[in-house]
Amino acid sequence: MDLTEESATAAVAASFAETPDPRLRELLEGLVGHLHAYVREHRVTVPEWERAIGFLTEVGQKCDDKRQEFILLSDVLGVSMLVETLNGQETGTESTVLGPFHVVESPPREEGESVDLLGRGTPCVVSLRVVSADGRPLPGASVDVWQCDEDGFYDVQQPDVQPLGNGRGLFRTGEDGRLWFRTVVPSHYPIPTDGPVGGLLKATRRHPYRPAHVHLIVAAEGHKALTTHLFVADSPYIESDAVFAVKQSLVVDFAEVADEREAARYGLAVPFREAVYEVVVEPEAADAG
Amino acid sequence: MDLTEESATAAVAASFAETPDPRLRELLEGLVGHLHAYVREHRVTVPEWERAIGFLTEVGQKCDDKRQEFILLSDVLGVSMLVETLNGQETGTESTVLGPFHVVESPPREEGESVDLLGRGTPCVVSLRVVSADGRPLPGASVDVWQCDEDGFYDVQQPDVQPLGNGRGLFRTGEDGRLWFRTVVPSHYPIPTDGPVGGLLKATRRHPYRPAHVHLIVAAEGHKALTTHLFVADSPYIESDAVFAVKQSLVVDFAEVADEREAARYGLAVPFREAVYEVVVEPEAADAG
Repeated sequence: MDLTEESATAAVAASFAETPDPRLRELLEGLVGHLHAYVREHRVTVPEWERAIGFLTEVGQKCDDKRQEFILLSDVLGVSMLVETLNGQETGTESTVLGPFHVVESPPREEGESVDLLGRGTPCVVSLRVVSADGRPLPGASVDVWQCDEDGFYDVQQPDVQPLGNGRGLFRTGEDGRLWFRTVVPSHYPIPTDGPVGGLLKATRRHPYRPAHVHLIVAAEGHKALTTHLFVADSPYIESDAVFAVKQSLVVDFAEVADEREAARYGLAVPFREAVYEVVVEPEAADAG
Repeated sequence: MDLTEESATAAVAASFAETPDPRLRELLEGLVGHLHAYVREHRVTVPEWERAIGFLTEVGQKCDDKRQEFILLSDVLGVSMLVETLNGQETGTESTVLGPFHVVESPPREEGESVDLLGRGTPCVVSLRVVSADGRPLPGASVDVWQCDEDGFYDVQQPDVQPLGNGRGLFRTGEDGRLWFRTVVPSHYPIPTDGPVGGLLKATRRHPYRPAHVHLIVAAEGHKALTTHLFVADSPYIESDAVFAVKQSLVVDFAEVADEREAARYGLAVPFREAVYEVVVEPEAADAG
């Protein structure tokens, strides 16, 4: 009784003493410690806290099966990227944020198929090779791909313009760990600004743009799943991603190819663009420390 | 670029450098500092962070015009009470949490009127006197009252059973700063457990109960508005309020009255219960430090 500025944190932490799951207990006690310290250090006022509650409520209410505003909030505060960084592979390809657009399942596609269903952008081939930490090729690895179109919109943002599944594909690597698919070069784009997170960026004079990128989740048997992007080199905003997700090692030249024989191999006309990348995933049981 | 565990917090804090409102900038930088420290200290994993995002999304989606699950979350984590405690009056009556049920406007009522529209519970009179810090009575002060019924439910929780406005009233004090109104003795009750906050309490084996109380917001001209409760002495859970809101100074004897003349004065039969309390509010401009 009579919670005070000094006693509050210990009292609330003690309320979690009977939590059966020790990790949940640790996470809740830690959360209470930081939340209370934040309120104390900044002498948060009642109207400020009410505004914070109102903001978080709006964030939740903006979410639906095609929109994930809480991931967006986590992204613009750099928390998503920090969590990815702490949990990323210690060797091999670096990971980056999942982002808020992995909200529908990617349609299964065959090697060489195009994830672009509109046929309007700059034709592009993405050629991947998935290998284990020791360089061994990994056949049969699943590669989940999603990206925006040449105007910077994901399918779920434009239900009247793009068929669901545009820009998305779930592939498997071939016998040599290789996979290639066709697409269009994605554009840089603003994260959705019509919700409370957009309001936050506006109030803080931050721009909402992300540099152009292709999302990947690579999962090979016996290996850690890898969530990452391929960033388009020289894209605008490559130095100031609104969600802090760019890593140098993930910036890839989407080079123009003018060679007719190369084009014929992929069933394309010249010129087209090609991104080549080797994805290195860590064995699951590996003691990579 | 290449945000690391070490560089992340400074990089994200720097993104708020152009925020025009210095207080917003401070609050956001502080928030980023604590969020990042929390993630680092507890090595939060990707699935754990995804679960947290999912939980917060559910909390937001449980909110509507009659339900405020984010206030409930803030309440059970003791944050609401800490904010109230930091911002409460330095002298006079102590404040406590607003709670999640102040979601509809209280109907204006005259002194002596009953806030109970059902006539089923134990009849009760609440007699208040609102005074300034120096003891001067404050006529014309507004007193916003809300409480649950004798079964522990607020009107908004039982739209089919209780008329909206049951348990609620917006009163004004008379010339001597006094106000009395009729009601029923409120019950202790569980906070709503059918949402994600209920799930959190269950997973941590915390009980959801609050001791019986009447909510008040007292606002007198030239004085700080006071948000508080009158707690019913000897209510169950008075020692273990699920939202940490009990203060000894707010625990009031809802005493049984058997005196026929007292009863006649209030238009009641004997026995009834009576709670008497003096509310002391601080002048707004006072340098109470």
